[in-house]
Amino acid sequence: MKAVEISAEWSPKPSFKLGSKDIDGKLTYLGSQVWKNPVVTVIDDKPIPKIKPNEVLLQVKRCGICGSDVHMAQSYDDGYIYYPGLTAFPATLGHEFAGEVVEVGSQAINKRTGKLYEKGEPVTVEEMVWCGECKPCCDGFPNHCERLQEIGFSIDGAFAEYIAVPSKLCWSLKKLEGKYEDIYKIGSLVEPTSVAYNAVIERGGGIRPGENVVILGAGPVGLASARILKTAGAALCIVSEPNEHRAKFAKTMGADYTINPQKENFVEKVKEYTDNDGAALYLEATGLPQVVTEDIQNCIWECKSVNSTVVIVARAEQRMPVCGEYFQVRRARIVGAQA
Amino acid sequence: MKAVEISAEWSPKPSFKLGSKDIDGKLTYLGSQVWKNPVVTVIDDKPIPKIKPNEVLLQVKRCGICGSDVHMAQSYDDGYIYYPGLTAFPATLGHEFAGEVVEVGSQAINKRTGKLYEKGEPVTVEEMVWCGECKPCCDGFPNHCERLQEIGFSIDGAFAEYIAVPSKLCWSLKKLEGKYEDIYKIGSLVEPTSVAYNAVIERGGGIRPGENVVILGAGPVGLASARILKTAGAALCIVSEPNEHRAKFAKTMGADYTINPQKENFVEKVKEYTDNDGAALYLEATGLPQVVTEDIQNCIWECKSVNSTVVIVARAEQRMPVCGEYFQVRRARIVGAQA
Amino acid sequence: MKAVEISAEWSPKPSFKLGSKDIDGKLTYLGSQVWKNPVVTVIDDKPIPKIKPNEVLLQVKRCGICGSDVHMAQSYDDGYIYYPGLTAFPATLGHEFAGEVVEVGSQAINKRTGKLYEKGEPVTVEEMVWCGECKPCCDGFPNHCERLQEIGFSIDGAFAEYIAVPSKLCWSLKKLEGKYEDIYKIGSLVEPTSVAYNAVIERGGGIRPGENVVILGAGPVGLASARILKTAGAALCIVSEPNEHRAKFAKTMGADYTINPQKENFVEKVKEYTDNDGAALYLEATGLPQVVTEDIQNCIWECKSVNSTVVIVARAEQRMPVCGEYFQVRRARIVGAQA
Amino acid sequence: MKAVEISAEWSPKPSFKLGSKDIDGKLTYLGSQVWKNPVVTVIDDKPIPKIKPNEVLLQVKRCGICGSDVHMAQSYDDGYIYYPGLTAFPATLGHEFAGEVVEVGSQAINKRTGKLYEKGEPVTVEEMVWCGECKPCCDGFPNHCERLQEIGFSIDGAFAEYIAVPSKLCWSLKKLEGKYEDIYKIGSLVEPTSVAYNAVIERGGGIRPGENVVILGAGPVGLASARILKTAGAALCIVSEPNEHRAKFAKTMGADYTINPQKENFVEKVKEYTDNDGAALYLEATGLPQVVTEDIQNCIWECKSVNSTVVIVARAEQRMPVCGEYFQVRRARIVGAQA
Repeated sequence: MKAVEISAEWSPKPSFKLGSKDIDGKLTYLGSQVWKNPVVTVIDDKPIPKIKPNEVLLQVKRCGICGSDVHMAQSYDDGYIYYPGLTAFPATLGHEFAGEVVEVGSQAINKRTGKLYEKGEPVTVEEMVWCGECKPCCDGFPNHCERLQEIGFSIDGAFAEYIAVPSKLCWSLKKLEGKYEDIYKIGSLVEPTSVAYNAVIERGGGIRPGENVVILGAGPVGLASARILKTAGAALCIVSEPNEHRAKFAKTMGADYTINPQKENFVEKVKEYTDNDGAALYLEATGLPQVVTEDIQNCIWECKSVNSTVVIVARAEQRMPVCGEYFQVRRARIVGAQA
Repeated sequence: MKAVEISAEWSPKPSFKLGSKDIDGKLTYLGSQVWKNPVVTVIDDKPIPKIKPNEVLLQVKRCGICGSDVHMAQSYDDGYIYYPGLTAFPATLGHEFAGEVVEVGSQAINKRTGKLYEKGEPVTVEEMVWCGECKPCCDGFPNHCERLQEIGFSIDGAFAEYIAVPSKLCWSLKKLEGKYEDIYKIGSLVEPTSVAYNAVIERGGGIRPGENVVILGAGPVGLASARILKTAGAALCIVSEPNEHRAKFAKTMGADYTINPQKENFVEKVKEYTDNDGAALYLEATGLPQVVTEDIQNCIWECKSVNSTVVIVARAEQRMPVCGEYFQVRRARIVGAQA
Repeated sequence: MKAVEISAEWSPKPSFKLGSKDIDGKLTYLGSQVWKNPVVTVIDDKPIPKIKPNEVLLQVKRCGICGSDVHMAQSYDDGYIYYPGLTAFPATLGHEFAGEVVEVGSQAINKRTGKLYEKGEPVTVEEMVWCGECKPCCDGFPNHCERLQEIGFSIDGAFAEYIAVPSKLCWSLKKLEGKYEDIYKIGSLVEPTSVAYNAVIERGGGIRPGENVVILGAGPVGLASARILKTAGAALCIVSEPNEHRAKFAKTMGADYTINPQKENFVEKVKEYTDNDGAALYLEATGLPQVVTEDIQNCIWECKSVNSTVVIVARAEQRMPVCGEYFQVRRARIVGAQA
Repeated sequence: MKAVEISAEWSPKPSFKLGSKDIDGKLTYLGSQVWKNPVVTVIDDKPIPKIKPNEVLLQVKRCGICGSDVHMAQSYDDGYIYYPGLTAFPATLGHEFAGEVVEVGSQAINKRTGKLYEKGEPVTVEEMVWCGECKPCCDGFPNHCERLQEIGFSIDGAFAEYIAVPSKLCWSLKKLEGKYEDIYKIGSLVEPTSVAYNAVIERGGGIRPGENVVILGAGPVGLASARILKTAGAALCIVSEPNEHRAKFAKTMGADYTINPQKENFVEKVKEYTDNDGAALYLEATGLPQVVTEDIQNCIWECKSVNSTVVIVARAEQRMPVCGEYFQVRRARIVGAQA
């Protein structure tokens, strides 16, 4: 089958120290410290994967392109890749996908039915392959699995005709049939949307219907969050975004107002649009918290709402400082999430 | 009666802008920007205050000396006081106190009985005078009252023989009678202990019995938190503190281990004492988060516990940055509280 | 001015024991045990009330009729009134209302602005008059105030041209101006809607967007809850209601499906509509939990969702048993709220 | 090896309907409806179990006797067993145990180290064998696993010299070495103590240090809860228990006061001991909620504390009604847990 594969040279920087979960020559949690000179190739004759008893084989129907996919293929002047996270190359790229079950392992249970998967079931798939047996998994945090693999990063992904995945990572799209034209397209959006859902609903605790929200940054996370929070009953959803095209798109995703922080005074605009109330939840989704944190703080300080939640979504490109000053912090709760 | 009063000159710095809740010449939310050349005086003939219908008159029995008391009296080289918060001078100092009810207003209800206060009732008193009618008060956040006054800061405090206070701020010590020798001493410790309780239990959400905690800084907030968290069932309570005397005191307050961060490797010691588990709750109580945040982050990153809560207690002396890097933040929730 | 007043005879049943907060001959927490032979009269010459410093005078614009209003006026064969709660007669009826500020006390602060109310401000009003000084009030539960009065029950209500109310109970409708035709009508719906909001959002903890809800009973609380929960992002909202007219109305309020429990199998229908998933939140709003609890339990037991929340809204007409069997309870959390 | 095995006849009552997860002739979720004439035998020559790659073999060191063990062996006059839950016979009994790792599967990871188990590691073991792949497991509720097996109930337990168990169910006792004399005895108490911990801490949400608790019933769950809640900082722990021996034992487990509800007035005593405050958490652990619920309600109603949590621990012996009346319910949150 055809597949889009990335490969690179294992060439750790002098400062790099093999981590406890890294595997020399193969896998690292700090990609940009190790991988050099990435090459993306289309392979024509990759064998169709064989499934294990707990797996299903999917015919991939749709697969999105994530910023991470691009950052794995991009390199700095010194040849090291942009992407700083868990990686093991060569690997087929692609982790935002949906497909149809075409083969079923003897223990591959469908969570929808509690029985074995049936061929033809449309599904989307978690990107993180968690073991279910280590301490974080047993404590209810599979995203912190100590033996994590990531589809399309450290093991083969979905820029391919077929992919074998553990059935426990699959979520059926069956109920969407008949309601939407292209359920696989919707299915491929689940992974990136889940980043936003996890940030604002799971980690951030959501809002009560009728509360205001302010989102800084109208990238994929900010846009999805706008839609999610309007769905959750946000009274006013204000999105701050300098790029006009994105700001316009934010409106179609549910923003009631947009602010251009390069041309307008962010704090004054939030006060104006909310009649000085401010917001119950502020989402930092610009990837530049060091730039916008002061604005968030001043907003909280000058508006009437107290006990606001500030959700910081970090980008994978780099480690970034999350700053908050005390006067404001006492009026807010800061929560971290990862894009 | 005798009273210890502070006065100073209203002399706003050129950069100071009167805030919306400030009163020119009288009250400001930013003390260190305004008050110059503080003088503390013992007055001999201050009149005993008259109570209003909703107030009680207390004979003060015990009153602690807070860092803030000192910082109001201390000044920088340019004459401006250290203390940066809500202040209106002249005012009698003293806000950590307990006393005996000696006079009772016609509407002064005792929360213990639901009836009028009786003379002789021993009580301790909230330091914040909240209005109960503004939006934050009605929303359940009296500490963010929009018409806040603070006893011993912006209105007369308890370094005096008598003080008149609204009955709704009083909490009876009656149940302690017979159980402790000096219930007024205990009562005077309620206010500072509440800062710690609010930080680790109310804002930080507490712990489940059997979880570990790490406290950075063995000042009053750190020490009280050690005792509170051991009482709440902390398995291991580790306190990091360079001052040997304080470290020793931390042990009497419940610390199982202490770390001297200037002589020992903080992260390695936490890993050693917890068998690599780390803690469910980290309390930043050094007043120097910019110095210790990286250690907290590395601890969270290298230990097994995930979903840790980081509580940052800010000091009133200055605005201080609260820093967190993304890789760690995703494993933790950061919460702010104020000392 | 004109006013609609209720009066009745204070005639305690032999079994009635004056409660600790009751006032002989005047006020009781158990109306149906005490008040006999109610009479509702239209008075023509009631004096316009005088305001206190912390009050505003409102010209009443809209006032709803609550089931409680009817139940205070209705009596059993022995003459005792239906309504079992806090009452002190005579009193002007009416507690679901909105009006315009026409007179302002010297300390009557507007929570919207933080300043004195201005004449002309449109407001709606809390029905419970809480003291703000007793233990439950100070603990953040003003609805459990130990010195509670209720507008239209134990003190004069809004079936009158004017009413004086403490400003802290008023909430401005100003922001609705220009957005809705009749903001006073909307304002008068706030009190009954808040009963539903308190039940499903505050007490019940709300839902995450995308979860299903099942509502039993399409009375005012059930209907308002349908709208609130759809606003909060309910994927499917299923309402069970035998009355066809009400069931139809439930659909206009947001129900995706309705069940007629007298003609259809409730459990089977929930399973069918949710593809066996069941719901994250079940709201008992029939007033007959003893009749429907078993259905809720079987639903939870037979569907896939676990950790469901069951919210029981009690009616004031009578004390009602809330039953749950163990096998189901372990899969659910039961929460009580009051209509 | 030696083992204590239970067997019985599969003889479903006429009214019994095979459930969706039952297996005819082998396994049922409703033991008392199916199994007749139980026989407990000591077997001398049971083969030592072979481990799978994800399992460890334990030499059993300590195993408690649970009420359920007795109830599986006891039968009503018609021959049917007492125990109503998940069962598949014949099975070796015993589920409260600890042992030493003597053989290690090739994928048997130790959660303590993140590496393969080492021989000699002391461990205790979860009783529920969850699949980790069904919907409840993936949603974070392994105790509601759709393919649940229970050690000592539906698969072989620990009344034997050796037992093979999945490593993911094991929890190391290593850290207790040197701190306690008999760590295996402590280890065997983890399972029953976890029932109490789950009830009062996980499901019930715990308490804040300084709050009061009231426990009804001093059986194993009540006793363990007394200890747990005192450890969590309960100010007063009051235990109601008619049996004098158990009441005395409750005191050694941390109870500050005990009430004999057959000789004393429960509500009056709670009011007396708490100075009318009541409790933040009431635990129903008598197994007879229908008998004691009214007392709990009256206590909540007459004491000052509001927003109390009522935790109902159901016994496996029978389905039992959980009753609450409306006036009280509005002051409390009811939570179910299973013993």
